[in-house]
Amino acid sequence: MTLTEERDPAPTAAILIIGNEILSGRTQDANLGWLAGRLVELGIRVKEARVIPDIEAEIIAAVQALSARYSYVFTTGGIGPTHDDITAEAVAKAFAVPLIDDVEAAGRLTRHYGADKLTPARLRMARIPEGATLIDNIVSAAPGFRIGNVFVMAGVPAIMRAMFDWLAPSLAGGARMLDRTISCALGESMLAEPLSAIQGRHPEIEIGSYPYFQAGRFGVSLVARGTDEAALAAVAEEIAQMIRRLGGDPMET
Amino acid sequence: MTLTEERDPAPTAAILIIGNEILSGRTQDANLGWLAGRLVELGIRVKEARVIPDIEAEIIAAVQALSARYSYVFTTGGIGPTHDDITAEAVAKAFAVPLIDDVEAAGRLTRHYGADKLTPARLRMARIPEGATLIDNIVSAAPGFRIGNVFVMAGVPAIMRAMFDWLAPSLAGGARMLDRTISCALGESMLAEPLSAIQGRHPEIEIGSYPYFQAGRFGVSLVARGTDEAALAAVAEEIAQMIRRLGGDPMET
Repeated sequence: MTLTEERDPAPTAAILIIGNEILSGRTQDANLGWLAGRLVELGIRVKEARVIPDIEAEIIAAVQALSARYSYVFTTGGIGPTHDDITAEAVAKAFAVPLIDDVEAAGRLTRHYGADKLTPARLRMARIPEGATLIDNIVSAAPGFRIGNVFVMAGVPAIMRAMFDWLAPSLAGGARMLDRTISCALGESMLAEPLSAIQGRHPEIEIGSYPYFQAGRFGVSLVARGTDEAALAAVAEEIAQMIRRLGGDPMET
Repeated sequence: MTLTEERDPAPTAAILIIGNEILSGRTQDANLGWLAGRLVELGIRVKEARVIPDIEAEIIAAVQALSARYSYVFTTGGIGPTHDDITAEAVAKAFAVPLIDDVEAAGRLTRHYGADKLTPARLRMARIPEGATLIDNIVSAAPGFRIGNVFVMAGVPAIMRAMFDWLAPSLAGGARMLDRTISCALGESMLAEPLSAIQGRHPEIEIGSYPYFQAGRFGVSLVARGTDEAALAAVAEEIAQMIRRLGGDPMET
């Protein structure tokens, strides 16, 4: 069950991870979980994530679909100096604006690398869509950018994180989403019916049931989420009582 | 750069991860990387991945969009016994067929739990779309299913992996995608131009450039991928020579 937008008017977001390396299984994505966690802290609801390859038409289509649908879109990857870095150009096309040489971005690259080492490849990183504003990169100078509701960031986790922390104060957040997690070693199917009854009594709280299987044994984590602390506490208590009634040992984790 | 389908007629796949817990940042996804790696080994090209919440309309839309576009779709999550497990019902709606009580699936659950413990919640896991075929679950009995080109699997990694290994022999693979990775401590922007020239000479090989930043130092991994081992070896050698020419020390990793 998920809270409807009518009940929860908080801003929404999509995360768009651009890069063949994730889809080839070569690299484990490290950006989605971190970004989702930070957005949740800011009261922004992450509604969707996509991983797509470095193909221009795919990037254009995804940026257009997601930016039309959600309050914010955060992209990672494809803004470096090499031939496979095509995100800036694709995002410009998604917004139907030209890609321009940005004077401020070129200045930052000049100060970082030195004018004599500012190769054409490096200057490529100063090309941003017309009308975009820069996102600071305190790690390696080459900036990200924002155009409309789309924030274009690097794929290297250390740089992406620095960029996000820089831009975060500009985001409008909603009510902070709170959560309580109660785990037990009971099988999920034992809990299904009473849990559904608790969910039915508390439509303002979203209850998720996440089974796990470790060392040959099943258990389940029950996660209650919502913006009302008192309602959340009531649900957490009902869940704990339900687990005890079924002979389990509720652990808040 | 990505190989076009004209050059590479291998089957394609999308991965659809269903579950609020990934989007809330609470759980780090462990299925995408594993599945992508296994599909690549089978000669199947993973073209897209999506993470969506447990919302029926979202699941229907994603299943329809992805199954129309790719050879295979693999979903994880949402097939358990609790109120938030709505994947089977949503997939049935995506294919416009009824959700039925499957006799074989119910039999497996009866043998696993015992007839006296087969609660309505557990029997929920025997409901599959009409016309679907079962995917074995050697871990916890409740099966996944295949309908059309869509494979519906559990979200618990140990169960998902067992389900995938069971169904993998039924997949048609293409030419195995091979890769060679050469890393060096040079900055990506130094390599951009000569690397682009190598890519231009070898359109049959896809070359990706993945910078990393560790302990205050930049480096880059250059990944060449393709199905022709000899062409791949030639590209790997050209990349190593390029790195040496620029004063770097190529390491195959």
